[in-house]
Amino acid sequence: MTHNEPIGIFDSGVGGLTVMREIMRRLPNENLIYFGDTARVPYGSKSKDTIGKYSGQIVRFLKTKNVKAIVIACNTASSLALDDLRKKSDLPIIGVVEPGAVMAAKTTQTQVVGVIGTVSTIKSQIYNRKLMAINPEITLISKACPLFCPLVEEGLLEDRVTEDIASRYLHELKEYDLDTLILGCTHYPLLRHTIARIMGESVHLINPAYETAKFLKEELEEKDLLRKGEVSLDDVRYEYYVSDGEERFVSFADSVLSCDVKEATQINIEEY
Amino acid sequence: MTHNEPIGIFDSGVGGLTVMREIMRRLPNENLIYFGDTARVPYGSKSKDTIGKYSGQIVRFLKTKNVKAIVIACNTASSLALDDLRKKSDLPIIGVVEPGAVMAAKTTQTQVVGVIGTVSTIKSQIYNRKLMAINPEITLISKACPLFCPLVEEGLLEDRVTEDIASRYLHELKEYDLDTLILGCTHYPLLRHTIARIMGESVHLINPAYETAKFLKEELEEKDLLRKGEVSLDDVRYEYYVSDGEERFVSFADSVLSCDVKEATQINIEEY
Repeated sequence: MTHNEPIGIFDSGVGGLTVMREIMRRLPNENLIYFGDTARVPYGSKSKDTIGKYSGQIVRFLKTKNVKAIVIACNTASSLALDDLRKKSDLPIIGVVEPGAVMAAKTTQTQVVGVIGTVSTIKSQIYNRKLMAINPEITLISKACPLFCPLVEEGLLEDRVTEDIASRYLHELKEYDLDTLILGCTHYPLLRHTIARIMGESVHLINPAYETAKFLKEELEEKDLLRKGEVSLDDVRYEYYVSDGEERFVSFADSVLSCDVKEATQINIEEY
Repeated sequence: MTHNEPIGIFDSGVGGLTVMREIMRRLPNENLIYFGDTARVPYGSKSKDTIGKYSGQIVRFLKTKNVKAIVIACNTASSLALDDLRKKSDLPIIGVVEPGAVMAAKTTQTQVVGVIGTVSTIKSQIYNRKLMAINPEITLISKACPLFCPLVEEGLLEDRVTEDIASRYLHELKEYDLDTLILGCTHYPLLRHTIARIMGESVHLINPAYETAKFLKEELEEKDLLRKGEVSLDDVRYEYYVSDGEERFVSFADSVLSCDVKEATQINIEEY
C-alpha cells in the first residue's frame, strides 16, 4: 500500500462530521483524522481574524499527524480562512464553499441561487464571489440563519419551532425566482426536510458535504495521492480529536448524526 | 479620592452586561472594567477544565488593569472556576451563584426552589451544593435550557417561539411545589416576562445580577475598598474589552441590553 497518510478534516465542532461521512462513503479506503474545535465552537458569529488564527492552529496540529490533504469541513472557516491557509501551505487544502458553488451554478436554470449560512459566512460574501467567478449572470440571494445550529444541537430536527423559525428565515428567499438553494452550513442538511417543505419542490437543495467529497476524490486522483494497493476494512483508521469534552462530542455524533464514533481524544489546540 | 482602582467584571460574552448594569446602579462611583470573551463564547456547553483555563487567563488580564476586586458575571464560570480562582488569588473574587442561592433560600416558603441555566451550570450541581450548605431542608429542582441564550441573542425576547420553547423547558418544573426560581444564566432575566407568565404569579424569580451587586457592595464595604471622596460623574470610567469583534459587541449591548456602550477594545486573551 502507498499513500497511507490520513486526510485531515476539521470543523468548529460536530457539524463537519456530516462532511466526514460523505468522505467515508466516497473514499472508503482512506484513513481519516477529524478535529472538532469544541472548546471554541461556534465559529459562525466570530471575526475573520479569530477564525484565521483558530484555523491556522488546527492546520498545524493536523500536520503533526502527517496528513496528505486537509478538508475544511466548516463553511465559516472555508469562507474566512481558506485563501490564507492555502498561501501558507504546500498541502492540498479543500473547503466546502467552492464545491457547493460549482454545483449550484451547474444546477440553476433560472440563474437565481440562494444561500443560507451563519452570520459570518453570509457577511463574508464568499458565495457571491465564487458564483460571480463561475458565471456572472447568476444572481445570489443570501440569508443568515443563526438559530439553525442551536436548534440542530438541541435535536429539534423535525419540530414546530424549527418549522416556525425556518419559515421566517426563508420567507424572503421565496420572493425570488430561485430554483437552487445552497445549504451553506454543515448543520443545515440535518434540517433538509423542513427546508425542502418550506421552499417547495421546485427548489433544488445543494449539500456541499456531498460535493466536497467528490471534489476531494478528484483532487487526490489528479495529484496522485489516493491510497493504493489492496486495502481491507481492517486497514482503514478513523481518529477523532477535540479541543473540549470528548464525551459530549461522542454522544452528539452518535445521537444526532448517527455516526459510529467510539472515542475521541482531547488536545490543547492553543499550543499549536 | 482613594481606592480609585477599577472593579473587573467578566463574562463569556455580552450577558454579563446585565450584571454590570446592576453594579453601575448600586455603586455609581466605581470605575468598572468589563471583559467579554466573545472569541470563545459560549461557555455553557464546555468543560470545567476549559472554563477554568479561560477564566484564569481573564483574571490575569484584569490584574494587568490593576483591579481591586473581580466579579465573575457568568453563571457557568462562577459554577466551574470560582473556587480554584479564589485559591490562587489574593483579590476578592465574587461569583453570581452564591448571591442568587442566598436570596433564594431567604425567599422560599415551600422549601422547594428551582434553578434554570446552561448545561454546564446545571451539570456542575453548584446550586445544589450552595443551597444545601445554607439550608439542608431545601429541595432544588434544576433544568438546563440551552436554547434560551441563542433566542435572546437573536432578539426574540417576546415571541411565540420563545414562549413555546420556554413552556417545554419549564413544564417539568411546574410539577413541583416550588415558589422560587433562580434565573441561573445572565441572559435569562431578559426573558423574565415569558418565564413569569409560564411559571405563574406564585413563583418568585431571583435575578442573581441584582443580588450580586448588593453582595459586591457589602464585600467592598467590609474590606474597606469602596471608592472614597468627592466623586463627580466625570470621574467615573467604564471600559470594555472583548476577545473578538468589538463592533458586534457594541451593537448587541446597545440593541438588546440598552446599554450605552460606545466602544470596546479587542485583545488577544490567549496571551495571558
